[in-house]
Amino acid sequence: MGNKEKEPYEKVDSQYYSEWYNEVVEKSELTDKRYPVKGMNIWKPYGWELMSNIDSRTEKQMRETGHQKVKFPLLIPEDEFQKEADHIKGFGDEVYWVTRAGSNELDIPLLLRPTSETAMYPVFDLWIRSHADLPLKIFQMVNVFRYETKQTRAFTRMREIHFFEAHTCHETAEEAEEQIKEDLEIMEQLSKKLCLPNLELKRTEWDKFPGGEYTVGVDSLLPTGRLLQIAGIHQYKTNFAEAYDITYEDEEGEHRPVHQTTYGMSARLVGAIIGIHGDEKGIVLPPAIAPIQVRIIPITYGDEEDEILKYCADLKENLESAGIRVDIDDREDERPGSKFYEAEMKGIPLRIDVGSNELEDESITLVRRDEGEKREYSIEGLVETIEKEMENMEEDMYRKAEEFLYDNIVDAEDIADITEEKVYRIGWCGDRECGQNIEERTDRHILGTLYEGEEFERGCLNCGDENADAAYLCKKE
Amino acid sequence: MGNKEKEPYEKVDSQYYSEWYNEVVEKSELTDKRYPVKGMNIWKPYGWELMSNIDSRTEKQMRETGHQKVKFPLLIPEDEFQKEADHIKGFGDEVYWVTRAGSNELDIPLLLRPTSETAMYPVFDLWIRSHADLPLKIFQMVNVFRYETKQTRAFTRMREIHFFEAHTCHETAEEAEEQIKEDLEIMEQLSKKLCLPNLELKRTEWDKFPGGEYTVGVDSLLPTGRLLQIAGIHQYKTNFAEAYDITYEDEEGEHRPVHQTTYGMSARLVGAIIGIHGDEKGIVLPPAIAPIQVRIIPITYGDEEDEILKYCADLKENLESAGIRVDIDDREDERPGSKFYEAEMKGIPLRIDVGSNELEDESITLVRRDEGEKREYSIEGLVETIEKEMENMEEDMYRKAEEFLYDNIVDAEDIADITEEKVYRIGWCGDRECGQNIEERTDRHILGTLYEGEEFERGCLNCGDENADAAYLCKKE
Repeated sequence: MGNKEKEPYEKVDSQYYSEWYNEVVEKSELTDKRYPVKGMNIWKPYGWELMSNIDSRTEKQMRETGHQKVKFPLLIPEDEFQKEADHIKGFGDEVYWVTRAGSNELDIPLLLRPTSETAMYPVFDLWIRSHADLPLKIFQMVNVFRYETKQTRAFTRMREIHFFEAHTCHETAEEAEEQIKEDLEIMEQLSKKLCLPNLELKRTEWDKFPGGEYTVGVDSLLPTGRLLQIAGIHQYKTNFAEAYDITYEDEEGEHRPVHQTTYGMSARLVGAIIGIHGDEKGIVLPPAIAPIQVRIIPITYGDEEDEILKYCADLKENLESAGIRVDIDDREDERPGSKFYEAEMKGIPLRIDVGSNELEDESITLVRRDEGEKREYSIEGLVETIEKEMENMEEDMYRKAEEFLYDNIVDAEDIADITEEKVYRIGWCGDRECGQNIEERTDRHILGTLYEGEEFERGCLNCGDENADAAYLCKKE
Repeated sequence: MGNKEKEPYEKVDSQYYSEWYNEVVEKSELTDKRYPVKGMNIWKPYGWELMSNIDSRTEKQMRETGHQKVKFPLLIPEDEFQKEADHIKGFGDEVYWVTRAGSNELDIPLLLRPTSETAMYPVFDLWIRSHADLPLKIFQMVNVFRYETKQTRAFTRMREIHFFEAHTCHETAEEAEEQIKEDLEIMEQLSKKLCLPNLELKRTEWDKFPGGEYTVGVDSLLPTGRLLQIAGIHQYKTNFAEAYDITYEDEEGEHRPVHQTTYGMSARLVGAIIGIHGDEKGIVLPPAIAPIQVRIIPITYGDEEDEILKYCADLKENLESAGIRVDIDDREDERPGSKFYEAEMKGIPLRIDVGSNELEDESITLVRRDEGEKREYSIEGLVETIEKEMENMEEDMYRKAEEFLYDNIVDAEDIADITEEKVYRIGWCGDRECGQNIEERTDRHILGTLYEGEEFERGCLNCGDENADAAYLCKKE
């Protein structure tokens, strides 16, 4: 093993981020943006497999924690949607309406779910009779629709959104709180595998889920210095249960409203991975979810071609039988250089080059996508080598993104200091007027206070009140 | 091993079929029909897992035959939908229209896909440049929408439909024909596993896929004597390619339209399984796709309870480690009788009863859901026993349904003979007027002629022309 060559990969300059992002999502073959409806893109095979790998991981976690998978209808009748006032206020402006079928005007317009509370909760009322039916823990993975008025962007700001949503009902407020903690643990495990370090922030009152009690937003930091929400975990208390009359009979025969929570994620996870880990050569995929974890590239000239191809095929079989997702790029009409380019653009974690030297030495040359360095390994213990390299890559990707996140959190004592594209930690007394004042004066959002709480010694940035919490102020992606 | 007791399971009387069907789909916990929009039901966990098991099997077959999985948007702009005239004529009356978003009227109304030709084909034009891009073979599993005006029914006649659709593009007509044959092979393999014997019928001109060249309908026979279409395989030739301008450059540099095919299936597969195999005790699921393949029921009274539960847990672990989907119904507040009832209603293929006798003999009592007979087996070689029983059950279920199908195909020489709820094999000259005349006079549909062709010696049922093919006449579910 030895370093042969160092190719430094440049991070994307945040000035060109947007242009770069829009380009790599297509060049890496994740998506096609040429579908003729704004904000609705095509998942190409590579992109859909990436998303499905993320979904499978989530699904496994959900099942391990006692959630069951369901599928509710897409269309919601207007009257069911209108039962919870804050919810309508929050989503009313961004729903799509089906008003006609064939040549008939519908009596009751149907809306395309922006999220499924109002589809599910009328039925929860029928599913839940007594405390024996609780907790109810379900989830689904579906398409949801939001009429986004801002500029749309692949994966992160779409009008048709691939969505994960878990909904739970509990007997008591304490059990619902425990569910929030379970969700945060699930998120933490997932974010390790997706290499997405984040802040878990309890949102402000004016930024919480419409109709809920409080929201924990899970935010990752993009190279632009803006926070991107990658998950939302919501405590509803009994707000929806009261609107939809979801009650259970307790052991004393009393009817009580259930306590509810939800946990939502979406294709934004893909957008965050691209944005945070990509570089000038393309995207970089975390090994755990990469559709292709290893690509073998035969460098074949002259007489040894057959032998090299056979050697590559054996490597592939060996890795495949260990459950590693591997392919060979043995196209005859492409030069190695353009094969390297493609493997890099698509973010394939590990590349194995095999030429005459490797054949002779019974070795491989391995290149990790995040480093670009070449290392030579013996083919003895190949599976272990590859597994170890993937593990190291996952840890390094996470760690680097984490360093970037914490390096970009800056304490601010004065509004005048808030000028850069960073995350500012400020004091906030918790008052709505003060908060909105700070947001306006800085043209940033208060993303919230850390869910687990935090010691902080400064007064409110607006009113100076010493009884202030640490709040995180940043632009939102 | 010996027969202890025989519980004959009654097939459902076709007179009560509808009532029975509507009841078991809910009692078996596959679906909840109480969602407040007609024709849109909720997939409960058990039902969704069953559907997902079918999907996984289909997906595996698709990948093995070189298809790639994609996901296209749900909403289609009106102008794209209107490019193929027959297609609009066929689907126009049954599409849902989105006309409004938030408070804005949309400039171009969007329709909810009834199928995805008109979503995909405008983009195929961009994906396909030269012969090197062909064949293009993709598939997706999505929700589609059809404004069904007839009485709706769970799984078989819905307004929101869980749908599988494969779309292919080829250089030549011959290659497209080969694709049709590949699809039929895939279907045949799948129908063995789903225990759904069927007829592959080339539909009449007036019953083919709107916009296509010809359609092969795959029909299974329900106990009511009606045929239910469970799959459609369509040859489009260049019809859509011309409407959507999908051309490729051949090796001589000529631009030619591609030849296209599609293959569609849906949640109807679930409906067919319920209808064909269910009995008075509930549904009966084919082992290959059953969410729970084996349920262990401890019969515990008195002192041996702990030992019996331990014995059951060991059995479960043993079967699980062999990849068999197994659970234990160890609820303390339910009597064995009601546990048997539930296992039967849900169609769990194999039941293992364990009581004092089994514990003492180191045996199990096994009950196959389709037979209801009890058999005692040693726990030696348990995994092999279970695998063999599942294999036998699959074969028996297929064979019985196949016998039922062929027993119910009757040759008819005269319109007056056509009175029963059966499949009539008749002569038909192929003329449209004759065919529609026969349909009207018998109040039945000509489902088509066998795709692989068939020798037949009778004249046309309507005009007497001796140059007639065997056509299948039946009511459609």
